[in-house]
Amino acid sequence: MRLEILPVLGIGDVTEGDDLAALIATAAPWLHDGDVLVVTSKIVSKAEGRLVDVPADGPGRLAARDEVLAAETARVVATRGATRIVQTHHGFVMASAGIDASNVDKTRLVLLPKDPDASARALRAALRERYDLDVAVIVSDTMGRPWRNGLTDVALGVAGMPAIRDHRGEVDPYGNELHLTEMAVVDELAGAGELIKGKCDQVPVAVVRGYLTVTRDDDTGARELVRDAELDLFSLGTAEATAAGLAAAAVLPDGPGEAPVDPAAVRRAIAAVAGVVAPGAVFTHVTDDDVRAMLVAAVPRWPERATALVLGELPAPVDPADLVRFGADLQRLRTALAAEGVPSALLPPPAGSTASAALAL
Amino acid sequence: MRLEILPVLGIGDVTEGDDLAALIATAAPWLHDGDVLVVTSKIVSKAEGRLVDVPADGPGRLAARDEVLAAETARVVATRGATRIVQTHHGFVMASAGIDASNVDKTRLVLLPKDPDASARALRAALRERYDLDVAVIVSDTMGRPWRNGLTDVALGVAGMPAIRDHRGEVDPYGNELHLTEMAVVDELAGAGELIKGKCDQVPVAVVRGYLTVTRDDDTGARELVRDAELDLFSLGTAEATAAGLAAAAVLPDGPGEAPVDPAAVRRAIAAVAGVVAPGAVFTHVTDDDVRAMLVAAVPRWPERATALVLGELPAPVDPADLVRFGADLQRLRTALAAEGVPSALLPPPAGSTASAALAL
Repeated sequence: MRLEILPVLGIGDVTEGDDLAALIATAAPWLHDGDVLVVTSKIVSKAEGRLVDVPADGPGRLAARDEVLAAETARVVATRGATRIVQTHHGFVMASAGIDASNVDKTRLVLLPKDPDASARALRAALRERYDLDVAVIVSDTMGRPWRNGLTDVALGVAGMPAIRDHRGEVDPYGNELHLTEMAVVDELAGAGELIKGKCDQVPVAVVRGYLTVTRDDDTGARELVRDAELDLFSLGTAEATAAGLAAAAVLPDGPGEAPVDPAAVRRAIAAVAGVVAPGAVFTHVTDDDVRAMLVAAVPRWPERATALVLGELPAPVDPADLVRFGADLQRLRTALAAEGVPSALLPPPAGSTASAALAL
Repeated sequence: MRLEILPVLGIGDVTEGDDLAALIATAAPWLHDGDVLVVTSKIVSKAEGRLVDVPADGPGRLAARDEVLAAETARVVATRGATRIVQTHHGFVMASAGIDASNVDKTRLVLLPKDPDASARALRAALRERYDLDVAVIVSDTMGRPWRNGLTDVALGVAGMPAIRDHRGEVDPYGNELHLTEMAVVDELAGAGELIKGKCDQVPVAVVRGYLTVTRDDDTGARELVRDAELDLFSLGTAEATAAGLAAAAVLPDGPGEAPVDPAAVRRAIAAVAGVVAPGAVFTHVTDDDVRAMLVAAVPRWPERATALVLGELPAPVDPADLVRFGADLQRLRTALAAEGVPSALLPPPAGSTASAALAL
C-alpha cells in the first residue's frame, strides 16, 4: 500500500471561460479512476471569471481593494494594523477573505470561487461525462491559522468524497473508545498536494493516487468543515472580544441573578477594585439573616431572588462630588462582580441603614 | 517528479525503553537517504516513558487527570464545559495539552514528549549512526483548530529539514512579489503521513519519499512554528477575552489620553449607554473654546492633554441616591468611551458649572 502525489504539468495560464476539465485531462492523460485532484482555487476563480479590476497602484488601489474586501466579508473576526481576518460568505475564516493579488495582472484581484463545492462538483462531473474519468476533486487554497507560524493548503470545496473521515465509536486495541477522531482528510490531501505544487513552478493541480478506492457523491462538501461561530471558542479576535467585554460592561444589565452567590467570588470582586476606588469607600458584604428583610424593604420586587447585599459606606459628612464618585466606584464593583459571573443591581440604601447605596446580588 | 507516502508496517506495541531506531529500521529495511519519517508522537512518548498512572475509572481518574493537565499547562487559553484548550510548556496550543488516553492501558495517560525537536534529532542521529540512513524525522500529533471542523496531523518536532519553506521575496510570473508564502511544510508532511496511517490499523510511522533531496541540520525545529502569544490575534478564547474586558472595565484607569478625541466616538459612546442610564441624566459633550479653561480650573495637571469634556447635568433638586446612581451612569459612559478607545477621567464639576460632575477626555 502506498499513496503517490503527482504534479499536473503544462496547464499554463488560465483565463476566464477556460475549460478546466479539458486543460487537466489534456495535461494529464495518465489520470485514473479514484485519483484525487487537488486544484488550486486560483485557476478555478480565473476560469469562472472571479476577478475584479483595480488600479495597479496608488491610493485608488487600496480603496478599491477595501471595497472588494467589504463585499466578500460576512463578518470581521479580527484586525491588527493592515491585517483583516474575516469570515467569508462561505463561512471560511481567512485573511483578506482569500482575495489574492499574486499570479495575476497588477490591475486585477482574484476572489475565491463563489461556491467551491459546486466548482468541485462541476469539474468532477465534466471529467466523468466527457473523459470517462471517475475522480474526486478538491478545490484548495492557502490559509494561515492561529498559534502556528507558516501557512498550509486546505480545502475550500470537495466533490466525490466526504470531507471528514469519522472514526468515532471505534475501539482501540486497549478497549478505549475513540472520541475525537473526526479527521479533516480533505485538508490533509490539500496540504499533500501543496507539497508537490510548491516544489515545481506554476503547478496548479496535483493528484493524490491510492487514497480512494471508490468515489462517492453522497457527501456534503467542504461546507462540512465550517464550524458555526457560536460553537467556536475563537469566534472573535482577542482584542475584539476584549473590546466587546468593555462594551458589555458599559450596558451591564441591572438585576440580581437566580443562583446562590459564591461569597468567595464576591470577595475576589471587592479585592479586584480595592486599588482603584476612592480611599474612603467601604464595601461591606452582608450575608446574615437580616439581608432578606432589608431587601424586602428596599426592593419589594426582588425579595426572593437576591441572596446577598453589598452595602456602601462613606464617611460623613458627604460631599455631592463624593457621592458621584462613590456611584462610579459601585459601578466598578458591579463590573468586577459581573466578571466573576455574579449579576447585581444598584439600589438606594435600605431604610434605617447608614449606607449610601446598596448592591443586591 | 512524484512523492510517495509509504506506511511502516509491523512496528507493534511500543513500551518504555524501546529503541525506536531499531524498531523502525527493522520494520522498514527499504528506507532511503532523503526519506522523511513521520513518527506519531505517541510511540515517542511511550519509548521515552512519558506515561503517568491514573485510576482506570471513577472520580479519582478525573482528579488525577486534572492534576496531570495542570502540570502540562503553561497557560489556559480557552475552556468550555469539559474542554480545556491550553498552551503547553513547548508553546503548542492544544486540547488537554495533548494528553491522550487512547492506544494505552486504561490505567495510564500518555503525555507529549518533553522536547519533540530533541526526540526527532535523537532518532535521526541514531538512524544515521547505527543504520547509515540519512533521513529527516517529524514527530507528529493530531490537533484541532479554530473555525474548521475535523482534526489534522501537524508537527511537534522536526530534525533534518527546516519547518518552514520560505518563498518571501520571490516574484511571480506577473512581477508581483510574494509576501505571504512561508509554508509550514512539516505540518503538510505530517498530514500527508496521517493519510496513510489512518488507512491502516496501528501504523505509527509513515515515510514521505521524494520530497527532500538532501537533509540538513542547521534548522531550528518545530519550535519555529510556535507563534508568540503576544503576536497572535487569538491568544485567548472569545469568552475569556470578553471576561478580561469586563475585568478591565472594573479597574479602568483614570486619566485622559494623549491623542485628540474623535467627536464621533464620543457620540457613539453616549448613544451606547443612552438606554441604560437614569432617564434624568443628561450628558453634554462640550468641545468649544471654553473647555480648555474649564479643564485648567478643574484639573491643573491635565490642561494640555485633555481635549474635550463631557458634563453631566441632573435636574434639581438632587437626591443623594440620584447622585450615586448618576456616578454609576458616568462610569458606564467612561466604559463605553474606553470601548471606543477614548480614555477619560471622572472629575468634580468645574467651578461655576451647573453640572454634577465632569469627564475629562
